[in-house]
Amino acid sequence: MSAYPHTAVTDSDALCDVPLPVLGRDVTVPLADGGEITYAALDYAASAPALQRVWDDVAAYAPYYGSVHRGAGYLSQLSTDLFENSRAEIARFLDCRPADQVVFTRSTTDSLNLLAHVLPAGCEVFVFETEHHAALLPWSDARVTVLDAPRDPAQAVATLERALADREPYGPALVCVTGASNVTGELWPVRDLAAAAHAHGARIVLDAAQLAPHHPVSVRDLGVDWVAFSGHKLYAPFGSGVLAGRADWLQDAEPYLAGGGASRTVARRADGGVDVEWHTTVARHEAGSPNVIGAYAIASACKALTEAGFDRLVARERQLIATLRAGLAEVPAVRVLTLFGDDHPRVGVLSFVVEGWNSSRFAAALSAEYGIGVRDGLFCAHPLVRALLGGDPAAPGECGAPASSLAAIRVSFGAGTPDEHVERFIGAVRELVRRGPDRG
Amino acid sequence: MSAYPHTAVTDSDALCDVPLPVLGRDVTVPLADGGEITYAALDYAASAPALQRVWDDVAAYAPYYGSVHRGAGYLSQLSTDLFENSRAEIARFLDCRPADQVVFTRSTTDSLNLLAHVLPAGCEVFVFETEHHAALLPWSDARVTVLDAPRDPAQAVATLERALADREPYGPALVCVTGASNVTGELWPVRDLAAAAHAHGARIVLDAAQLAPHHPVSVRDLGVDWVAFSGHKLYAPFGSGVLAGRADWLQDAEPYLAGGGASRTVARRADGGVDVEWHTTVARHEAGSPNVIGAYAIASACKALTEAGFDRLVARERQLIATLRAGLAEVPAVRVLTLFGDDHPRVGVLSFVVEGWNSSRFAAALSAEYGIGVRDGLFCAHPLVRALLGGDPAAPGECGAPASSLAAIRVSFGAGTPDEHVERFIGAVRELVRRGPDRG
Repeated sequence: MSAYPHTAVTDSDALCDVPLPVLGRDVTVPLADGGEITYAALDYAASAPALQRVWDDVAAYAPYYGSVHRGAGYLSQLSTDLFENSRAEIARFLDCRPADQVVFTRSTTDSLNLLAHVLPAGCEVFVFETEHHAALLPWSDARVTVLDAPRDPAQAVATLERALADREPYGPALVCVTGASNVTGELWPVRDLAAAAHAHGARIVLDAAQLAPHHPVSVRDLGVDWVAFSGHKLYAPFGSGVLAGRADWLQDAEPYLAGGGASRTVARRADGGVDVEWHTTVARHEAGSPNVIGAYAIASACKALTEAGFDRLVARERQLIATLRAGLAEVPAVRVLTLFGDDHPRVGVLSFVVEGWNSSRFAAALSAEYGIGVRDGLFCAHPLVRALLGGDPAAPGECGAPASSLAAIRVSFGAGTPDEHVERFIGAVRELVRRGPDRG
Repeated sequence: MSAYPHTAVTDSDALCDVPLPVLGRDVTVPLADGGEITYAALDYAASAPALQRVWDDVAAYAPYYGSVHRGAGYLSQLSTDLFENSRAEIARFLDCRPADQVVFTRSTTDSLNLLAHVLPAGCEVFVFETEHHAALLPWSDARVTVLDAPRDPAQAVATLERALADREPYGPALVCVTGASNVTGELWPVRDLAAAAHAHGARIVLDAAQLAPHHPVSVRDLGVDWVAFSGHKLYAPFGSGVLAGRADWLQDAEPYLAGGGASRTVARRADGGVDVEWHTTVARHEAGSPNVIGAYAIASACKALTEAGFDRLVARERQLIATLRAGLAEVPAVRVLTLFGDDHPRVGVLSFVVEGWNSSRFAAALSAEYGIGVRDGLFCAHPLVRALLGGDPAAPGECGAPASSLAAIRVSFGAGTPDEHVERFIGAVRELVRRGPDRG
């Protein structure tokens, strides 16, 4: 454990502080005053650092890399096994049902776009306005019902039930819902929403981009039909994501990408055209050479989180959240954004505004003066953030950093975050607020 | 150069053998007789090993990984610079025109599916039956004209010209053509085909998946409108690919994926729906968090190939090809597949069949008895391979390894391949043929 430079901090047992170290924990960055400091990565909700374990696994495998599914050589066989075992590892991590498929995509965005591509004819989509754009926007070929932001979990379920019951015609339907908000970090009542969906003949996909890195996800227990998440938020930033769940819609649809891997046979017809027989297995939607390293990195992260004891990680993260909330509560200028109320359970993701401060300038000061990386903007969830800020819903702004001053600051963390980062952050917020926006 | 264990190059000097070493060069694999041997990776056309340099660059960057485009922290800024500089490096490598865009995708397959997605209304696509499925199949929403396999480059140009001239209506058209066949390795007359396309009011995309790893590609000089290639064949197997070229069709089309990053502003309408303003820059088709490591790995490979002297690599590869061809020519049972004739220039990709042998069994013997990794099958180019083998065009078969005996064996190599691998391969072919298919 001597490899951890930042282990010691508050409590007496330094070793318990960071059960799963991440890459970059020793990186120092320059400060505006000419000094330097170890970087405090508090933007996990955008993209998390790789677990050291994930990096070590990837590094150990890299010399053995070979083409999968298609080569006769030893490393091709080894790589094929590694790739397919990664699929199986991820299915275990998600507690999938036996018939569920794990499709490798590039990200949550890609996973949800894939699901949008396979919707059966006439399928209506129901989605709350509070969702990330990746969950809000991919359904443009379907009829979409955007549901108003609920103010508590029960209202979310009631709103969904009413909308599903009222749908006309009462045809196939899909509900897309986040497990944990990428803005507030608040947990959504996924199990209840899944029950409501099924009671009304609809299916449900869980956007677990922000949930899976912070909390065990059981497809079986939650009763969702599909789950989507990204490797790069799950400590495995190597370009892969996952869509896992029921096979039928996937099997019945046209391939997501057309090309090799997805095509079983291709032959010219007598009329000069081409006949294609597509695979009906998971390969159907994975045309092109798979990102073996990306898939293996996700499997490695799943294994590492499980072996470290996910409950232990959750408990530690709750302590950090409590520290953070208590620290911010002592700064009256800080307003934490919440949909379901201050006491609602959340993962290590929290957004706020500071009275009198431009959020972008505040975030820049955290970086330049304290070596802290957070994010400012509307977090690719414009309707939600605007609603929480009470701003003009039509105000223009970039997905990331809006030109207007209507924006918030988001702080987020997870595995590998030492107490010191959260404490430094609280201290920095306190100092900046005391100093005011006009100095420095 | 001291960092390169295999730097040397001429014949007398073993160290000069491999100007750009790859990962895995020391990996040993078990043999059927109980021994072991260093692995001879001769399946570069499916997926190439990473350059050592690419791995070193990725490893040096990994601790500095951060979210791109959206974070206020130092590592986010650094990662954004690295990501955008990677785009610029790749544009230089491809000798792009100033207004060209470099879009990151996951692979050549993905790049061509993206281009298929942005075709203007009524665009007709022209593609030779000899193409890889990734180039043959993505155009299903357009009218596609599949052109018969030419028997020489001039016939290819003439066939294309005739088809383009005869098209009815004479509307927008796209030609998709490979730079080097993934089956025969033969170079296609890309510059002439581009001139023919433009003379007939069509555009052209170059599938450079097999060309770019072996030969400099100049978008400007070849006169192509777009070029597509994969990182994993260009010694950068980290899940990224590229589509580079003209911006207009890309800008005018709906985003490839819907989600964050592609969306500039999102707001609810009074009627409950959602209004989206999409980016018009390259971000339009790159929704979701980008694969920064994958993009950087490609840029690193481009830089390494350029700095090593691509002409030098080409010259060395030609020597290996000459050795290979001379060696196989001495084995009468071996028939090398060719479309344009034995003397036509090719990259380090060659397919063949062995009289009396099942190709799959031959490839398995190369692996088990000699530690050589090649590929057998139809190489995701079914119509071409069937035509070259003179087989039944309707015979069933997997994309990779067909169940039927109609299949070939492909050997392929490139940067980092030592002479010994090619020599071992020739010796193994000679031995196996002498021994015959019924022993062992």
